[in-house]
Amino acid sequence: MKVSILGHGVVGKGVWEMLKGNPGYEIRSVLVKKGEKSADFMTESFEDVLNDDSELVIECMGGIDPAYEFTSKCLEAGKSIISSNKALVAAHGIDLMEIARRKNKAFLFSAACGGAIPILQNLCLARRTDRIIWAGGILNGTTNYILDSMDRRGLGFDEALAEAKALGYAEFDPTADISGMDTLRKVMLISMVAFDVLPNSDYNIEGITSVTALDFAVAKEYGCTIRLIGKCGLAESGRLYAYVQPILCDSGSAYSGIRSNINLARYEGQNSGVMSFMGQGAGRYPTASAILRDVTSVTDGQKQMLTGKCLVGFPYNNSGECSRNYFIRIDSKADALKGSIPVNRILCEKEGCTFAVTDSITVKAMHDAVAELRRHGAKVFFAETSVFNKEA
Amino acid sequence: MKVSILGHGVVGKGVWEMLKGNPGYEIRSVLVKKGEKSADFMTESFEDVLNDDSELVIECMGGIDPAYEFTSKCLEAGKSIISSNKALVAAHGIDLMEIARRKNKAFLFSAACGGAIPILQNLCLARRTDRIIWAGGILNGTTNYILDSMDRRGLGFDEALAEAKALGYAEFDPTADISGMDTLRKVMLISMVAFDVLPNSDYNIEGITSVTALDFAVAKEYGCTIRLIGKCGLAESGRLYAYVQPILCDSGSAYSGIRSNINLARYEGQNSGVMSFMGQGAGRYPTASAILRDVTSVTDGQKQMLTGKCLVGFPYNNSGECSRNYFIRIDSKADALKGSIPVNRILCEKEGCTFAVTDSITVKAMHDAVAELRRHGAKVFFAETSVFNKEA
Repeated sequence: MKVSILGHGVVGKGVWEMLKGNPGYEIRSVLVKKGEKSADFMTESFEDVLNDDSELVIECMGGIDPAYEFTSKCLEAGKSIISSNKALVAAHGIDLMEIARRKNKAFLFSAACGGAIPILQNLCLARRTDRIIWAGGILNGTTNYILDSMDRRGLGFDEALAEAKALGYAEFDPTADISGMDTLRKVMLISMVAFDVLPNSDYNIEGITSVTALDFAVAKEYGCTIRLIGKCGLAESGRLYAYVQPILCDSGSAYSGIRSNINLARYEGQNSGVMSFMGQGAGRYPTASAILRDVTSVTDGQKQMLTGKCLVGFPYNNSGECSRNYFIRIDSKADALKGSIPVNRILCEKEGCTFAVTDSITVKAMHDAVAELRRHGAKVFFAETSVFNKEA
Repeated sequence: MKVSILGHGVVGKGVWEMLKGNPGYEIRSVLVKKGEKSADFMTESFEDVLNDDSELVIECMGGIDPAYEFTSKCLEAGKSIISSNKALVAAHGIDLMEIARRKNKAFLFSAACGGAIPILQNLCLARRTDRIIWAGGILNGTTNYILDSMDRRGLGFDEALAEAKALGYAEFDPTADISGMDTLRKVMLISMVAFDVLPNSDYNIEGITSVTALDFAVAKEYGCTIRLIGKCGLAESGRLYAYVQPILCDSGSAYSGIRSNINLARYEGQNSGVMSFMGQGAGRYPTASAILRDVTSVTDGQKQMLTGKCLVGFPYNNSGECSRNYFIRIDSKADALKGSIPVNRILCEKEGCTFAVTDSITVKAMHDAVAELRRHGAKVFFAETSVFNKEA
């Protein structure tokens, strides 16, 4: 198969290394950034890729502009596309799927969610024979590395973030990771594959920027730790929810066992029960290995991971029908929580902060209530939890 | 697609329920045991299945005789086969693969290893683009339920086994589970898919029949628990090993987090790193869900999970090149271990038993040494471990 590659960074170079010695593939063009051409096989001109005789183009550029222009032009020119670019697929996946359908070419993007973990392809197969109830998990290795370091080694947030940067687990600008946006994009991809719906607005998202060493100290008193999860699923009404938020989980939880920068992607099928997949969610060779699996799937004849029914947006509001119990910390007396948040009981007061657990409240109501508290200057951390609920 | 089903027990009935309302499938014949025909859609005669116009036959009978006769006749008659029968595939998988290749029909058996966990199909895809280094894990829910109950609830072996039987997690005759034979059969299937080799002799196998409450008590003193794993992989020489034995693992291990009757199937790919899959390894709907995924794969055109290169037997001896450290308990003084087992240090003496850890020793040498001790009347429990090694 004749293949070209867009991008020669961390992932693109890994794909190039893995394909170049393989007798089943001929590499036609490798697009590099302006000024970075350092070998004959590289080109700085996208036109060279568009006009070569490659049948399959692997996009590892990241970002939306010009990745969307380049991938859509390649599909229009009759080339199949494999992408590792979650921002691109979350923003334009449905458009690209439609061009690929019209041209009868492939558009696959396993590596855009979960790195080496084959969550999207397994969901593709599972949704055809089972009813998916929910899907998601720990989908961002950077935040998990920070949280696990705070938990097990007692680091503060800034210290853990600095270490993650030094080790290459966090980017120079880590905003997308620590805000939860990266996790949300992966939830968007999972939702498209599992539920035929792209949740592109009104989602509830809370990252890890509010978590402190004190939160971990209190969590530990209850045998718990803190993780960041993203999830989408069907509410009892049959309508979808999608959110990103921290979770406080005890040592028996699958989440608490996820260490360092490992990811845990899961779904519950009505027949299969809960299926969990753990592995490297990022990195050159793990991510390239997912791209190579997609290349194999293209040669096997797979054209799409999205069905033609995939829609943008929710038919109804998102997490207003999905309820959770929460662990919450506020930097003032418990009275401040009154009114907006259904406090079940106060756990403790420490260092001028109040820690409490709530009764069941919808994800949307909780995020709205915390936003309101923050608008009035309060410092708040909150995490869904079923730990205290179980005790009661 | 026209489908017939061999067997109407736990799994077969689940498959029938899931297919019967599905407009994509027409069920032709359902073979039941003699004297159990209780509805029009059932037959007690295999000839009815062989002579119907089904294109695909799903075998959920279990056992080898007559499952091998029936499946081979169906393939010869030009019908594709999906099987959930690990004993059949371990004994005759290569024969059935060869008939299916000759007739250009499908022969898939996802449900025969790991229940709902898609370990075999994911290995099928991974092996084509990555180098698998090892594969295996906790592959038997019955033994894991017993071990977890002994660990977390302090039950004795007999008590835990009786409870597993009462809950339907263990069969009336649990020998295949507790001896490790069921795990071994799954390792055989994994090895066929991952390495093109069926390890059909000279394997080392140790089940859980020797484990006692005292072993768990001592393990707990070191923050550890005990699990049963099966594994196959490439030794440094490039030759294969395969074995089943208990493992003593600390609380940070993925194995120790596997509770109740859940399975954990894993592999390490050179590029992907360690990939882990957790889920229900048995039960009507989980197992039927794996069969339904295979049905979908057949409609997508997949014919085989085994390559035509799959061989019976090892080119060389099996686990004589694979070394581990061990935790060992013997019902006498440490002197009894001298000579055959490289004791690193004595951990403790309790209730007339000596607990020790060994230096690195090949799996084969360890199993041989323990067999020799047992021939002389010693009661021995042993489990591979890296816990004490890490400390040193």
